[in-house]
Amino acid sequence: MTQAWHQHLMRVQYKDTDQMGVVHHGNYITWFEVARTEWMRHFELSYHAMEEQGLLLPVLDVNASYKRSATFDDLVVLFTRLEQFSPIRLVFEYEARRITEEDWKSQGLTSATVDEPYGELLTTGKTTHMWVNEAWKPVKLHKTHPEIYDQIKNIVE
Amino acid sequence: MTQAWHQHLMRVQYKDTDQMGVVHHGNYITWFEVARTEWMRHFELSYHAMEEQGLLLPVLDVNASYKRSATFDDLVVLFTRLEQFSPIRLVFEYEARRITEEDWKSQGLTSATVDEPYGELLTTGKTTHMWVNEAWKPVKLHKTHPEIYDQIKNIVE
Amino acid sequence: MTQAWHQHLMRVQYKDTDQMGVVHHGNYITWFEVARTEWMRHFELSYHAMEEQGLLLPVLDVNASYKRSATFDDLVVLFTRLEQFSPIRLVFEYEARRITEEDWKSQGLTSATVDEPYGELLTTGKTTHMWVNEAWKPVKLHKTHPEIYDQIKNIVE
Amino acid sequence: MTQAWHQHLMRVQYKDTDQMGVVHHGNYITWFEVARTEWMRHFELSYHAMEEQGLLLPVLDVNASYKRSATFDDLVVLFTRLEQFSPIRLVFEYEARRITEEDWKSQGLTSATVDEPYGELLTTGKTTHMWVNEAWKPVKLHKTHPEIYDQIKNIVE
Repeated sequence: MTQAWHQHLMRVQYKDTDQMGVVHHGNYITWFEVARTEWMRHFELSYHAMEEQGLLLPVLDVNASYKRSATFDDLVVLFTRLEQFSPIRLVFEYEARRITEEDWKSQGLTSATVDEPYGELLTTGKTTHMWVNEAWKPVKLHKTHPEIYDQIKNIVE
Repeated sequence: MTQAWHQHLMRVQYKDTDQMGVVHHGNYITWFEVARTEWMRHFELSYHAMEEQGLLLPVLDVNASYKRSATFDDLVVLFTRLEQFSPIRLVFEYEARRITEEDWKSQGLTSATVDEPYGELLTTGKTTHMWVNEAWKPVKLHKTHPEIYDQIKNIVE
Repeated sequence: MTQAWHQHLMRVQYKDTDQMGVVHHGNYITWFEVARTEWMRHFELSYHAMEEQGLLLPVLDVNASYKRSATFDDLVVLFTRLEQFSPIRLVFEYEARRITEEDWKSQGLTSATVDEPYGELLTTGKTTHMWVNEAWKPVKLHKTHPEIYDQIKNIVE
Repeated sequence: MTQAWHQHLMRVQYKDTDQMGVVHHGNYITWFEVARTEWMRHFELSYHAMEEQGLLLPVLDVNASYKRSATFDDLVVLFTRLEQFSPIRLVFEYEARRITEEDWKSQGLTSATVDEPYGELLTTGKTTHMWVNEAWKPVKLHKTHPEIYDQIKNIVE
């Protein structure tokens, strides 16, 4: 699988800083969550709608590696791609990268896919998820929700 | 109503600081929530058990006034008392105050009520709550959950 | 002072929900902070730049009144206006309102000022701030930073 | 290195839940931070004092693996041990485990070390840290802060 990266722009909030003067490392975990929600939206998969159909996608494992620190008011692009997909689980890969105000103005950044992430690398990450039903029992997606399974398969191919 | 204050000790976490080097003001709202959960526990009211009985207590209004800043690793005592109580709503009052390590060691602080808050005043606050059922419809507590109503009435008197 | 309202669009994150299935009330305090940062940016005042000039604007008092709950993935417009301004303090007023996906698509919402807030009212709020220097001593803005004082005065008038 | 585990008890806050009805996975990253701060305190190393001496310990890498979910009001014991230690970096290992109210009452849990973690396993984790100075330049701990280096070496041996 060599997927394209989805890009989503965000701005660092004051609340996300800590007394080291940089973004507290724990916030990236939430940023990754925003990133995959927007990845889904881009491909017309709504996580909100999935939950209403009784399909949950809890996190089994999360990893983040910190290269550089983000600071208050920075513009950060979250890059997301699907790394693995099966009827049982999903693996997402992330990169958080800083861009300048000038970059932003010149590009008019929107939700889109790109071949390669750009900007100054801050953090890389990965999350593994499992498809479960409302009772938190694992499901096989192609059997319980074949239309969602096909939709993701189409994205991958 | 001149209620006693309930005291609950906590320690300031690194994550609660921001780049000003002090606790971000938004965290006090969460501290108040912890404070009233512990107030309830002290009086053998479990908010957890209430929710399981279909009784919710959403916040209608919150206010916080900041006097001094807390910093990382400070010991903070949260003082809580019931300011108003009716079958329809509850008002809680809070004070967050800093104590020293020596105070803590000498007192062996536990969940207890005291007549007057002590320590260095950091923040005062107030929250107003309404009793609602699982469908978020207002309820009259003495009719829907008379045993909880009586329990709180006993605390107040 | 009858100021225009500044609008800033945001989307509710999963992390902001709690087990009541709605946005935890504490998050609105952070949203207000984002809202006033964006209010400043709109008027070409950078809070980031202010801090670098040794000017801080801590919160003295915060109030939020909750009317309706926001849920995951909702589109929320944060409306902000300056309610009071002096060389010593600032008061901001906020409204968080929900709009629909259709509203958003039809309007192409950007950072702008409007005469009246629109959308479904979720929460109103107010924050009071004081100008202080890096040592957290109160300053008189028109004396220490006359150019920032004039800039805000121009916004107000 | 076969270190003892340090135990620290905490209670799950309402704010930490999300609309799945369980603790949002991102909170464990903060719990690990609390856990290592308490680990340090137990061994009479104050992270607060280190920062005042210009020594910072940023996170290079964090991993969390989720086995079971915690829910509101659960009692959670955070177990922490040092997995690697050198003049350049530190690796901590964590386990978050649930205990019952009865366990807690019978044991009178305090900050202590134990040979083996106990309770129901919720989440395991690991963080890697690097010693840096205030300018975020890597330092060799045994050269810049030999007394802290010796103190940790004593813990390890």
